[in-house]
Amino acid sequence: MYNPRNANTSDRMTAPIIVDTAEAEVLRALRLRGRISRTEISNITGWSKAKTSQEIRGLVDKGYLVDVGEGASQGGRKPRLLRLNNGLGYVIGIDIGATSLELALADVGGRILQRRYETTDVRLKPEIVLGRCRELIGEMLDAQGSRPGQMLGIGVGVPGPVDFARGVLVAPPLMPDWQDFPIRDFFKEFFPSVYVVVDNDVNIMALGEQRTGDGANVDHFIFVKIGTGIGAGIISNGKIHRGSDGCAGDIGHICVDKDGPICRCGNSGCLEAMAAGPAIVEKAIQAAQNGSSPLLSQMREANGGILRPEDVNAACREADQAALEIIRSSGQMVGDVLATLVNFFNPSHIFIGGGIANFGNHLLVSIRQAVLRRSLPLATTRLSINFSRAGADTGITGAVALASEYLFMVEDGLHYSF
Amino acid sequence: MYNPRNANTSDRMTAPIIVDTAEAEVLRALRLRGRISRTEISNITGWSKAKTSQEIRGLVDKGYLVDVGEGASQGGRKPRLLRLNNGLGYVIGIDIGATSLELALADVGGRILQRRYETTDVRLKPEIVLGRCRELIGEMLDAQGSRPGQMLGIGVGVPGPVDFARGVLVAPPLMPDWQDFPIRDFFKEFFPSVYVVVDNDVNIMALGEQRTGDGANVDHFIFVKIGTGIGAGIISNGKIHRGSDGCAGDIGHICVDKDGPICRCGNSGCLEAMAAGPAIVEKAIQAAQNGSSPLLSQMREANGGILRPEDVNAACREADQAALEIIRSSGQMVGDVLATLVNFFNPSHIFIGGGIANFGNHLLVSIRQAVLRRSLPLATTRLSINFSRAGADTGITGAVALASEYLFMVEDGLHYSF
Repeated sequence: MYNPRNANTSDRMTAPIIVDTAEAEVLRALRLRGRISRTEISNITGWSKAKTSQEIRGLVDKGYLVDVGEGASQGGRKPRLLRLNNGLGYVIGIDIGATSLELALADVGGRILQRRYETTDVRLKPEIVLGRCRELIGEMLDAQGSRPGQMLGIGVGVPGPVDFARGVLVAPPLMPDWQDFPIRDFFKEFFPSVYVVVDNDVNIMALGEQRTGDGANVDHFIFVKIGTGIGAGIISNGKIHRGSDGCAGDIGHICVDKDGPICRCGNSGCLEAMAAGPAIVEKAIQAAQNGSSPLLSQMREANGGILRPEDVNAACREADQAALEIIRSSGQMVGDVLATLVNFFNPSHIFIGGGIANFGNHLLVSIRQAVLRRSLPLATTRLSINFSRAGADTGITGAVALASEYLFMVEDGLHYSF
Repeated sequence: MYNPRNANTSDRMTAPIIVDTAEAEVLRALRLRGRISRTEISNITGWSKAKTSQEIRGLVDKGYLVDVGEGASQGGRKPRLLRLNNGLGYVIGIDIGATSLELALADVGGRILQRRYETTDVRLKPEIVLGRCRELIGEMLDAQGSRPGQMLGIGVGVPGPVDFARGVLVAPPLMPDWQDFPIRDFFKEFFPSVYVVVDNDVNIMALGEQRTGDGANVDHFIFVKIGTGIGAGIISNGKIHRGSDGCAGDIGHICVDKDGPICRCGNSGCLEAMAAGPAIVEKAIQAAQNGSSPLLSQMREANGGILRPEDVNAACREADQAALEIIRSSGQMVGDVLATLVNFFNPSHIFIGGGIANFGNHLLVSIRQAVLRRSLPLATTRLSINFSRAGADTGITGAVALASEYLFMVEDGLHYSF
């Protein structure tokens, strides 16, 4: 349990818990690894045994860490393991998609204790969508039998460009009513003691991949979401790279064809306009109409004149040549852009997620071929390009991770860092 | 002076000096800011006054820091300032270009005390070029009246792709004989107690821009070198991003035109093959031959049939339309690639350096126009694109910075980090 003897307890709980750099190092290692021994902490920090013991005692006294008993022996005495004190409270993750809403209540270590899922429409006013989130949070806290003050932080992922420092959406094409809406204040009005962190949907997927997926312990990776739009979350040196204005990873509007169709951003030939879900559907409708795919034409009639990306996927499984060509073309365009980013960023892994990601190997092979064709050998020899195995859960685990990521912070006078 | 009472002094001096994470935090702040007060250290680390004093006392006792007297008052008592102890020893920076060699001897704070410059040819065997470096280091140490063991580290910048972890060049197009040559061992054979850090020329320019140029205190920037080749150095969250294989920033081989000329890398239409120095000269020769630029034709005859990039620059200054078009076209291609990288990476600054960078405003304006046309507004509103004002010194100050960057390190069991 949180130790109330510490000075400024209530103040500190209204913001992230402020720690010093040494404490932050220990807490960061714990958060990433779950459980950790004193020897491991000593290895990570370079501290002597005595200093390690002293720092850990301080963190246990403050109620941040607990001793969880003995781990497996490495040959000698069994090491005593430490983990974050789950009694500190709860964090909430919220993953807002274009058409769905997912919430989770988790302990500070990131273990999800409750989940809620509903359909929604982000074109609605933020008060409506976030108001529903607030109700669902209340439900989960009640079901948990939680005391006020036990909810520490909220991590929110939204499908649009976020000014991370201010925690607001900036010119979001899918949800214009949300422009500059004060998401933090909206929650803090009801839950005054929490901190609220807002980030875009792809950054939280990258965090989720790092916390619970194959991105664990990977220093440099790119998570690419392909769905209605296309975006990337970037991990550099083990940390999210958000860039100077918080909009790093916005790869959907990279130009792939100067003579291509006009994008909703106003430029022509953007990757998103040419390779994402709507472009795939558009090409499938053409193939259905011009006779190059009797199968797609048949599907469209059966669907009442409508085709969805899933239909193109189903046609691929039937080896429909037009459908395969559409998917390969999307894969190649995504791969051409990734080839540029691989030369520039030199990641060891690229994870592909989002609604179009489960379109199977034709998409993946086309992406890989394009990257290998256009990137330098040194950058691709050890490069792995795969679908994210964490799948649909990446978003919600990432939203929870976002909330716990900022639980402990170092204040350096100018800004927080962790 | 270095305090010999510390345990393992001689061992530690054979490698970077191993410190713990708290000490590293203080040393990092000192290295970036030069001089710093106890209050500033306390603000950065979040430590109490008592803990700050204790850590600083430890670092002073070990001989890493010295007290340099009083700074300017901020209203109250004048603060006592600390800096790195220059008595610790010297570091050497080596900046190897395609045709030149520059060395500097500096104190651990990065102040350059001696410099040497010579022409060379990196197509020569590494034993010859590095052997000459070894002689010049010896000369500088003698001139400094240095004792053995006072030279702590060497930072080396080379014009080719570097596997940073191994400290060797990998498939370097300019200098094939250097492939996998053990640069570290070559120096350590003569100077057994030093550590040697090898990086590519553009990364050290980015470091130099960060240490002594306008890149100081900038969290996210890209340094672009345009010369015989084109490459980038990347700073993410205040640190060099080298990528998974150490080859991040290799933007010269990004495709700008699938139907473009074949590059020395084997692909077609690489940025470097279309926009760097040799491509500029190639186009200038065409303009001289096909009559579109009588001025370039005249220059070529006066030069004995040869044209250099500088001639194209001179023709631009005379408002020669063909020359201007050549430079604008290069700027546009560089800008198109940077637009992609701006969307992906969202830097706040782009610095342009290298031999072609002093080609004035026509180049800069074309680059800016292309970036603004193709990047998203959120990413460009506050983006600054300028020539590096640090100019030709960026390389050698960066090589010195590279050497001092790795002087103090935290060993986390697996690898060093700072």
